[in-house]
Amino acid sequence: MHPGIVLRTLSYILLIIAGCMIMPAAIAVINGEKNEFFAIVLSAGIAVVIFFIIKFFSRGSDSETLSTRDGFLFVTLSWITASLIGALPYYISGAIPSFTDAYFETMSGFTTTGASILTQIEILPQSLLFWRSLTHWLGGMGIVVLTVAILPALGIGGLQLINAEAPGPTVDKLTPRIAETAKILWFIYLGLTVLETILLMFGGMNLFDALTHTFGTVATGGYSTKNTSVAYYNSAYIDGVITLFMVLAGINFSLHFWLLRGKFENLLKDSELKGYLAIFSISTLIITWNVSGTTYNSIGESFRFASFQVASILTTTGFATADYEKWPFMSQAVLFILMFVGGCSGSTGGGIKVLRLITLLKQGINEMKYLIHPRGVFTLRINRRPVKKDIVYGISGFFFLYILMLLITTFIAASSGADVETSFTSALATLGNIGPGFGKVGPTDNFAFFPAYVKWWFSFAMLAGRLELYTVLILFTTVFWKK
Amino acid sequence: MHPGIVLRTLSYILLIIAGCMIMPAAIAVINGEKNEFFAIVLSAGIAVVIFFIIKFFSRGSDSETLSTRDGFLFVTLSWITASLIGALPYYISGAIPSFTDAYFETMSGFTTTGASILTQIEILPQSLLFWRSLTHWLGGMGIVVLTVAILPALGIGGLQLINAEAPGPTVDKLTPRIAETAKILWFIYLGLTVLETILLMFGGMNLFDALTHTFGTVATGGYSTKNTSVAYYNSAYIDGVITLFMVLAGINFSLHFWLLRGKFENLLKDSELKGYLAIFSISTLIITWNVSGTTYNSIGESFRFASFQVASILTTTGFATADYEKWPFMSQAVLFILMFVGGCSGSTGGGIKVLRLITLLKQGINEMKYLIHPRGVFTLRINRRPVKKDIVYGISGFFFLYILMLLITTFIAASSGADVETSFTSALATLGNIGPGFGKVGPTDNFAFFPAYVKWWFSFAMLAGRLELYTVLILFTTVFWKK
Repeated sequence: MHPGIVLRTLSYILLIIAGCMIMPAAIAVINGEKNEFFAIVLSAGIAVVIFFIIKFFSRGSDSETLSTRDGFLFVTLSWITASLIGALPYYISGAIPSFTDAYFETMSGFTTTGASILTQIEILPQSLLFWRSLTHWLGGMGIVVLTVAILPALGIGGLQLINAEAPGPTVDKLTPRIAETAKILWFIYLGLTVLETILLMFGGMNLFDALTHTFGTVATGGYSTKNTSVAYYNSAYIDGVITLFMVLAGINFSLHFWLLRGKFENLLKDSELKGYLAIFSISTLIITWNVSGTTYNSIGESFRFASFQVASILTTTGFATADYEKWPFMSQAVLFILMFVGGCSGSTGGGIKVLRLITLLKQGINEMKYLIHPRGVFTLRINRRPVKKDIVYGISGFFFLYILMLLITTFIAASSGADVETSFTSALATLGNIGPGFGKVGPTDNFAFFPAYVKWWFSFAMLAGRLELYTVLILFTTVFWKK
Repeated sequence: MHPGIVLRTLSYILLIIAGCMIMPAAIAVINGEKNEFFAIVLSAGIAVVIFFIIKFFSRGSDSETLSTRDGFLFVTLSWITASLIGALPYYISGAIPSFTDAYFETMSGFTTTGASILTQIEILPQSLLFWRSLTHWLGGMGIVVLTVAILPALGIGGLQLINAEAPGPTVDKLTPRIAETAKILWFIYLGLTVLETILLMFGGMNLFDALTHTFGTVATGGYSTKNTSVAYYNSAYIDGVITLFMVLAGINFSLHFWLLRGKFENLLKDSELKGYLAIFSISTLIITWNVSGTTYNSIGESFRFASFQVASILTTTGFATADYEKWPFMSQAVLFILMFVGGCSGSTGGGIKVLRLITLLKQGINEMKYLIHPRGVFTLRINRRPVKKDIVYGISGFFFLYILMLLITTFIAASSGADVETSFTSALATLGNIGPGFGKVGPTDNFAFFPAYVKWWFSFAMLAGRLELYTVLILFTTVFWKK
């Protein structure tokens, strides 16, 4: 363990978060939101001061380099630090009077969960609403990935860090140099952002609404600037654009890269993409069938709301155009099951991820083959390439720990007096970075009613889910802290 | 595949089931239940006729032996056959007018699930109530285990068959000869049965009530002969006895064997037993704390109801002394989480099983060790003995398929219009062979309201859960049917 270098690297996160606050500060100036302007500037100022304090005290660590262990600690602490600093504008401005709530809201933002403690969203000043949506955008591709992309001079083990942060079993090295890969990922992300913003503005949104909702979409976050979420706009065009970009954001970003390079064959042979699109299509089909004639009049309308909500839950975004708790139970069950799935690996989506589920399914089937032919050799293949047993092992461990964390979180939520349905689905919604659940945390509800200790645990669950469990849980093992 | 020998072996199951009907038939005679007597005798007669028909047509298969594949098919078909024949007394007597319901009730009995379609239990004649409880007792230790124990002359691969039926990753060979092991297991089972029956009669139960409730306990089944289940007796003594025997029935029967042999050291070093008792104690403690002062006045009373219900759900029995849906939500969440656990391997309990969960937890922790020391060697040990990677692989596959089956069953239940809570917990309750769930399938409810197709699927889920998935699901793989 090298606390000096961990702290020093961490201090750059402070600078980046402070730097990102320039945007909401500018909006505060434009709108004359003086109170918010000073709150944001003060928050950024605090971050910079801490940066210099750390710089001063970690002078001796210049020659140190980050070890693997330091990497896990650094990545986890990065997100906690970012959320602590990111919560300050809400707290100092008085928009969110409780620090617990402000921290929850920020962690929910950075982890792209989208679960909110706000009962009224539209009363928030625009500068803070922008900051709220911006936390999604920063967290979507990853704070550490961003750091690696802009600070390659740090000379730290970038791939290891990205692997500790990135969604999915492993990160494809698109280019030999990891800082280059990080940059490419961020450029694709930026491209999607610009494209969606323009398309939403074509639909009649102003720049502010278009940007904030784009942040919520491409990051698969789900924060809206409206109390009724995307339902506010009541536009089939806007619903369609957001549905499309939620689906795109849930796809492995490496595939976007291959698409740009014209290597379509890489897309066509991708098992995860096929599985993901199949799950999306079948779920949309079932719900469209189920709600047409009951909840909605026409098949077209049914398809519009069904595809939006399926994309929203499957990709773990959490936007809402309908109160799905009023849908027939079969449709609700489909959404409930999708909460166990999540996006593709290497996307901005959360959850267990399609690739892991495919791997586990193939492994389960392989086990049956071994029962029939005990001495046979059955290789598990994904995209026609054999998958090493070690990776399957890692995924199996992940899956178990995920279900375990789900049940522990359910218990903690229920200990505050929440019913079992609310507790279990709020666990699913936070751990999977989805946002809404069922019961008292449905698409028209919020997380305000939970007591402080549950909100802190949820913040922990959101972080653990976003960093795919191992990176966070490893800090609680004895072997991690042993010499 | 050797259909001849499979059919021929299967025909013995028919004889055994027919033979077991002598007991309820005798009760019908004693009570003068003429209609039921003839229904039972006719059912047994049908079984015997089919036996001879099969015997006639499978003459040529005398020289054949059961292969591994045949074993899986035989075990699965045994349970289906037993349930088809076992459903006849209800159906022919008219006590359960729908064959779907009668089959569901019988499969729920044999698989020791205890989920019922009966809205009124006490109106059933005693002979049928006895048969209902007897299906628990036969299924608890296993129909095939029984067959192997009494028909060793069959010369079939007993261990393989038992492994295909028995609860838990592997069966300990207590003695070199498998028929001997099967006999020992059945004797322990018989011993527990006699002991509990006597103890319950001391508590004021008549022989009939004592026997039927003992069947429900030692098989971890849960069928009672009273509408209000064990709550009917309102006796702390009876609750205590049943709690104790539920806990005993949830322990690996090998440990009972070692206990009888005086080998206490085998018990003390058993990780699964420790885990099982720890889960039981902690859950009881939490619920006792939670319900005392709220639902119940004294701590003693709270402990009585808490320990009973924890034992009932953890061991997947399903008896009720309280409507736990009226308990505070924290207690409900504990019971909900216990529905994911189940008894010990090699017990009569269902669910995922404690040994599997311990193995998966250790594997998850090992994965984190590998992240820190990629070139380290970390052996997974249970009871201080290393566990082969293949076994861990098998358990991982099982765990995933279990969750997958859970979600598919949830969807099918919800497709009939049941709410998500009812659907998900009825999936947990059937797949885990528990019985009651939450919502509309709570401890005071029943499964009558589900349409026929859901009941057939539940029957399938109960069977898949009882035979620990692989034995049943393997029949749906292409490799199974390939030459």
